[in-house]
Amino acid sequence: MKIELAESLGFCFGVKRAIKIAEEAKDAHTFGPLIHNSLENERLRKDFNVGLVENIEDLKSNSKVIIRTHGIEKKNLVRLHEKDMEVIDATCPYVTKPQQIVEDMSKEGYDIVIFGDEEHPEIKGVKSYVSGNVYVALTPSKLDNIALKDRVAIIAQTTRREDEYEKIVSYLMRRIREVRVFNTICNATFENQDAADELSMRADVMVVIGGKNSSNTKQLFRICEQNCNSSYLIESAAELDPNWFENKSLCGISAGASTPAWVISQIIEKIENLKPKK
Amino acid sequence: MKIELAESLGFCFGVKRAIKIAEEAKDAHTFGPLIHNSLENERLRKDFNVGLVENIEDLKSNSKVIIRTHGIEKKNLVRLHEKDMEVIDATCPYVTKPQQIVEDMSKEGYDIVIFGDEEHPEIKGVKSYVSGNVYVALTPSKLDNIALKDRVAIIAQTTRREDEYEKIVSYLMRRIREVRVFNTICNATFENQDAADELSMRADVMVVIGGKNSSNTKQLFRICEQNCNSSYLIESAAELDPNWFENKSLCGISAGASTPAWVISQIIEKIENLKPKK
Repeated sequence: MKIELAESLGFCFGVKRAIKIAEEAKDAHTFGPLIHNSLENERLRKDFNVGLVENIEDLKSNSKVIIRTHGIEKKNLVRLHEKDMEVIDATCPYVTKPQQIVEDMSKEGYDIVIFGDEEHPEIKGVKSYVSGNVYVALTPSKLDNIALKDRVAIIAQTTRREDEYEKIVSYLMRRIREVRVFNTICNATFENQDAADELSMRADVMVVIGGKNSSNTKQLFRICEQNCNSSYLIESAAELDPNWFENKSLCGISAGASTPAWVISQIIEKIENLKPKK
Repeated sequence: MKIELAESLGFCFGVKRAIKIAEEAKDAHTFGPLIHNSLENERLRKDFNVGLVENIEDLKSNSKVIIRTHGIEKKNLVRLHEKDMEVIDATCPYVTKPQQIVEDMSKEGYDIVIFGDEEHPEIKGVKSYVSGNVYVALTPSKLDNIALKDRVAIIAQTTRREDEYEKIVSYLMRRIREVRVFNTICNATFENQDAADELSMRADVMVVIGGKNSSNTKQLFRICEQNCNSSYLIESAAELDPNWFENKSLCGISAGASTPAWVISQIIEKIENLKPKK
């Protein structure tokens, strides 16, 4: 039996990068959780002495602090520098980009619209880089009663859907003379889905790895189930059943965005050992 | 009976302005027809000695030339100056604007997309102001096989529909990192329709003035008919029938985009004289 990984699966580029940065930094703290996966944050604490601090004033001066993937507010970055900390930036580059864009565009006199969730740490961070007017909205109606300038620059939260972004841009186009649209959406989640879709159409058995409560993992599983009758959703290697793989020639693997690579590797190794010896 | 004009009717701002410019210039030629209304162009020739020249080389050096509402190609403007002509610019400011935008944006390194009809004089003129890459498209599919830069500026032909403009912008947003959208659509046609709609709902009799073959005039008439049973489409004062106005208290007036103000005035005067004396 051949085992094939979906072309895109598990952690996205930004998460992988942040973990590598944290591992290399060692003996540091992250200000807020590095990524949205406690298992992985705990592994970093145990194996690399990278702890977690939620309150900036709990950080010791002159020590190492790692900025998490979602980024932080500018005032907090200033405070970290005031405390003479060694700041190690693990902000996802796809998040740094909108921070830079809104900073530049508001300096150029544009009103800023952010298509996203006001309460999300990524958006709190991005918003803090605006020097002029900024409005956060998930729907056009949120902007109805706002007197916008005739020049608006708009960015999107990296995990938003493009079709919803289009709606807010179309609305602005009708109201505003110049709308400068930056497509800051990162397609990692959709890439995992597309790759799972493609692979599960060819596979005889499909293993989707991820939390059973994870909404993006469940979505991957639903896609695979439609294409491949023998699809299974598991969290760990212990759940594997040798019967699943009997008389199969291609086993496909997909994994949710919160699934660490080492969990995926463990499961692949176990499947390889389950293979009927030839 | 009260007579009320639709809040927006007849010639748009750009056409009115061009006619005023031509009247003030006198003893001149327009390079191409000043506006798309031969009756009015003929009046200008007779009353103000403003003739029409289609070929640039037929213009005498040192004489006066008027640039028509749709604008002209940059190379032709250069040629007019080479011929030492007195150039009087009657280009609609709503057309000058996209010319300036595409000139500036292409200098800044943006690829230019023009949403419009390649064969329309307005678009030929606008396109000629681009120094880099420029693509004219009415539908997204026209751009499918074009390798666009990651920074695109887009403008629209002034008479296009906003919902179709949105489609091409949405398409570009998905492909391109930065799409700089300029809403250069002029709503004059739609303003006439909206105003006719509003007025005909209140009027007891509605007179729509314009060519019986003019598509925008017929569209005005259809709108009025729906709201007011006593709606009439006429081209000249001679068609008015006193019976239409018997026992009516409000007469509404609308007019197509190609209807000169003097035609509208003549008709209003005639209606006023038809009024039963009190």
